[in-house]
Amino acid sequence: MSTQSNKPKARLPRGLVDRHGAELTATRAMLDKIRAVYELYGFDALETPAIEYTDALGKFLPDQDRPNEGVFSFQDDDEQWLSLRYDLTAPLARHVAEHFDALPKPFRSYRAGFVFRNEKPGPGRFRQFMQFDADTVGAPSVSADAEICMMAADTLEAVGIARGDYVIKVNNRKVLDGVLEAIGLGGDENAGRRLTVLRAIDKLDKLGVLGVTQLLGEGRLDDSGDFTKGARLDAPQILTIRKTMLRGTPKPMNEDPVTISETSWLDQLERDFADNETASAGVRELRQIAQLCRAAGYGEDRILIDPSVVRGLEYYTGPVYEAELTFEVKDEHGRPVRFGSVAGGGRYDGLVARFRGEAVPATGFSIGVSRLLHALAHLGKMDAEPEIGPVVVLVMDKQPERIADYMKMVSDLRANGIRAEMYLGGGGMKAQMKYADKRNAPAVIIQGSNEKDAGEVQVKDLVEGAKIAAGIADNAEYRAARPAQFAVKEAELVEAIRGVLERRAAPSLGLAD
Amino acid sequence: MSTQSNKPKARLPRGLVDRHGAELTATRAMLDKIRAVYELYGFDALETPAIEYTDALGKFLPDQDRPNEGVFSFQDDDEQWLSLRYDLTAPLARHVAEHFDALPKPFRSYRAGFVFRNEKPGPGRFRQFMQFDADTVGAPSVSADAEICMMAADTLEAVGIARGDYVIKVNNRKVLDGVLEAIGLGGDENAGRRLTVLRAIDKLDKLGVLGVTQLLGEGRLDDSGDFTKGARLDAPQILTIRKTMLRGTPKPMNEDPVTISETSWLDQLERDFADNETASAGVRELRQIAQLCRAAGYGEDRILIDPSVVRGLEYYTGPVYEAELTFEVKDEHGRPVRFGSVAGGGRYDGLVARFRGEAVPATGFSIGVSRLLHALAHLGKMDAEPEIGPVVVLVMDKQPERIADYMKMVSDLRANGIRAEMYLGGGGMKAQMKYADKRNAPAVIIQGSNEKDAGEVQVKDLVEGAKIAAGIADNAEYRAARPAQFAVKEAELVEAIRGVLERRAAPSLGLAD
Repeated sequence: MSTQSNKPKARLPRGLVDRHGAELTATRAMLDKIRAVYELYGFDALETPAIEYTDALGKFLPDQDRPNEGVFSFQDDDEQWLSLRYDLTAPLARHVAEHFDALPKPFRSYRAGFVFRNEKPGPGRFRQFMQFDADTVGAPSVSADAEICMMAADTLEAVGIARGDYVIKVNNRKVLDGVLEAIGLGGDENAGRRLTVLRAIDKLDKLGVLGVTQLLGEGRLDDSGDFTKGARLDAPQILTIRKTMLRGTPKPMNEDPVTISETSWLDQLERDFADNETASAGVRELRQIAQLCRAAGYGEDRILIDPSVVRGLEYYTGPVYEAELTFEVKDEHGRPVRFGSVAGGGRYDGLVARFRGEAVPATGFSIGVSRLLHALAHLGKMDAEPEIGPVVVLVMDKQPERIADYMKMVSDLRANGIRAEMYLGGGGMKAQMKYADKRNAPAVIIQGSNEKDAGEVQVKDLVEGAKIAAGIADNAEYRAARPAQFAVKEAELVEAIRGVLERRAAPSLGLAD
Repeated sequence: MSTQSNKPKARLPRGLVDRHGAELTATRAMLDKIRAVYELYGFDALETPAIEYTDALGKFLPDQDRPNEGVFSFQDDDEQWLSLRYDLTAPLARHVAEHFDALPKPFRSYRAGFVFRNEKPGPGRFRQFMQFDADTVGAPSVSADAEICMMAADTLEAVGIARGDYVIKVNNRKVLDGVLEAIGLGGDENAGRRLTVLRAIDKLDKLGVLGVTQLLGEGRLDDSGDFTKGARLDAPQILTIRKTMLRGTPKPMNEDPVTISETSWLDQLERDFADNETASAGVRELRQIAQLCRAAGYGEDRILIDPSVVRGLEYYTGPVYEAELTFEVKDEHGRPVRFGSVAGGGRYDGLVARFRGEAVPATGFSIGVSRLLHALAHLGKMDAEPEIGPVVVLVMDKQPERIADYMKMVSDLRANGIRAEMYLGGGGMKAQMKYADKRNAPAVIIQGSNEKDAGEVQVKDLVEGAKIAAGIADNAEYRAARPAQFAVKEAELVEAIRGVLERRAAPSLGLAD
């Protein structure tokens, strides 16, 4: 292999990252808690591959403007197009359609895995990220949707989000579609325009009422100078949407709408759109969901019918829901901001039908794993195990026989369940101590020729040593005291290290309560 | 979305599979055990993305004959080439080179993740599969290699492979390279030919001495009629390789070689290639590895110096090792076959140097996760949790208020840690009971209007019911007895279900001891 010229640069493509120790440990702990809730609800594990046929996935991503529509695609040897999955819902639809007769119906599954988006990356926005989904396929009633919402609430509490710090907001595409029908945007020929409107409403959080109103009209020029074409609705159409979907009574263009209660909003919709079958059906379903949740003990503080939820994906056909964190965090300028959405989902009765022709009712929910972990870190609830480094056996003598001795010590420690290693680098004493520090080693073990002759080893307790050193002002005094270093017989090494580990106080950083 | 015409077919590309419940549970349990051993040895978690720059990965796969050389590649928006990682070693080299100054040295990391090979799939050969690697980067001495071999042995025992059912075989590329130098295949100009020879030797397991000899000579015609071009060595060259690398003294072409002991083989090499510096260094390293392993208590039954190990990857530069399962399984014709290799690795001192110019010594080890799980399943050691299905609450009455009652029951059961669900499908009583059976439900809960009026629920114990049913010959008798079905007050439901679950015997299938 060439080491001289044309050296490749060691770098990752943008939007892709490496992850390390504490974050990975915390992720694993969080995934275990989510899994436990999903299993309690009767969902079973399923795993599908990262690569699928492009036509089997379909194209349902909101990012229409880019040539490859947000999906990484490539051709197989037989010229068929393959894509990396962009979510875990489209592959589930493929799986269900492929194995329809063999599956129990309803089919409850959960899936955790990486998905890939060929999008412009940004802060907290990656081209590979993990989702953790649960879906019920073959369940026509809104009981299934209500259940998913309750499970979402239970899941957030299980991972450490306190009640009051989150809310599961529920809306219904049928309400939205009904209102759009009522203002003349019904029919297949307006499908694209309806989607543009829905995606505009979906940006209420980010752009406010003014921004959304611009997107409903001619379009919007953003801060970077990019112009987004609008849905070109007229003033009365926009007004209707503002009254119903942007919540409450109309106000001057640049103010946030007045918030109204769940019941008032549903009553208003029922009254205003009594003639519209789609909207009325949507309202009925939302009332049922609320009723089921209340009966099972989930109040409006946890699951709330809310007109602001839209969800940008094209395939939703009924109830849609979003898990929002309501506590405030500070942004980079110290200003309080809400954390926002960490999960969402909805009903997609047409997705399996793509393959089978007949409708297969389905509803599901997806957690953004990194986003949720990020939120937990903000709350100080990231469940990282204390990072206990290994005990490091220093190499004082490089003769093969002595190396074998050191290796034997390490092997004995490990056989007793103690995390340990021999220093394997090429450095001297100073480099070795520096390494032990960097690894957060609780202790190092030293055996030079004097100790060897005496059948002893020196144990240096680095945690205790650091504490003592903090109380000793003078360098010379420190060296004279040789704090926290002691000699033990070779046969007593394991016992001595056990003592050091027990004395070691549990670290207080990053631990869940 | 179109449901009428041009329906896509629900199918996966070849070499890709979906995985389910028990297999996923067992995989997770196995990964936890592997992780525990790796952490005990002082390795820390690292995760790299599935997508890398093609030039950062390099091309080190053995499958030279295919146009894309076994890698899935595609272009980024800026025209740069991206690839799906084909192993976890090349991305580690990129990570280390990218963050060199910040990392502790040596850097010990473990990584579990999917890798992708654009190869011809076959039985047990997939285009996406999981590897679980551990590597030490920045460790020049063979102590690091010896340690990895010990860790491999400990890992196999931790997941349930008994001592005696596996062996970690160790060889050294320097020995192989030295022998090839000695027969005139030294120098950069012969690098490609050396690789062809090594890959031929690597096939000893599959093709036997005769097949390998053909690949060392003119080439080999396989059963399917495909001809593989050979390395075109002459007879004396082939004889030397057979004497040293194919183990023991030369025998007739189609016979397996005589096995010789570790020490005899090393002695023979030392004698025959005393003039060759590369081979001699290789022999010295192998002796050191053996010495370190023996000193730490790992005998030849667990870690064995063995000339048959080669490893097909181009980047290895020193010790190479392979974890082989030695117990026999039956093939599809009932003939006993050995399970073979489940893991392997070696030293790759040049891989980080690709980026940095200076050599960075490194050694590592990779477990084929599915292959190892498959082996455990054969041994009856697959650690699957008993598949306890959810308690299913049947829907006897579809009135919204009654649905809310059923949902409340489910919610109470879940709040008490009992896996439960309400039937969410559209079917009647028969379909609901069939569903409960298919889900392996331990019990169903029934509440029609009579029970509701009495403030009671019916509990049907399906496990007990199945046992009793097995002892009742007659259908009418069974119905009359209504075995294992009883009524309880609504308030006692949770307690009653707990009783059913406790009576339920632990299933004996698929459980580790």
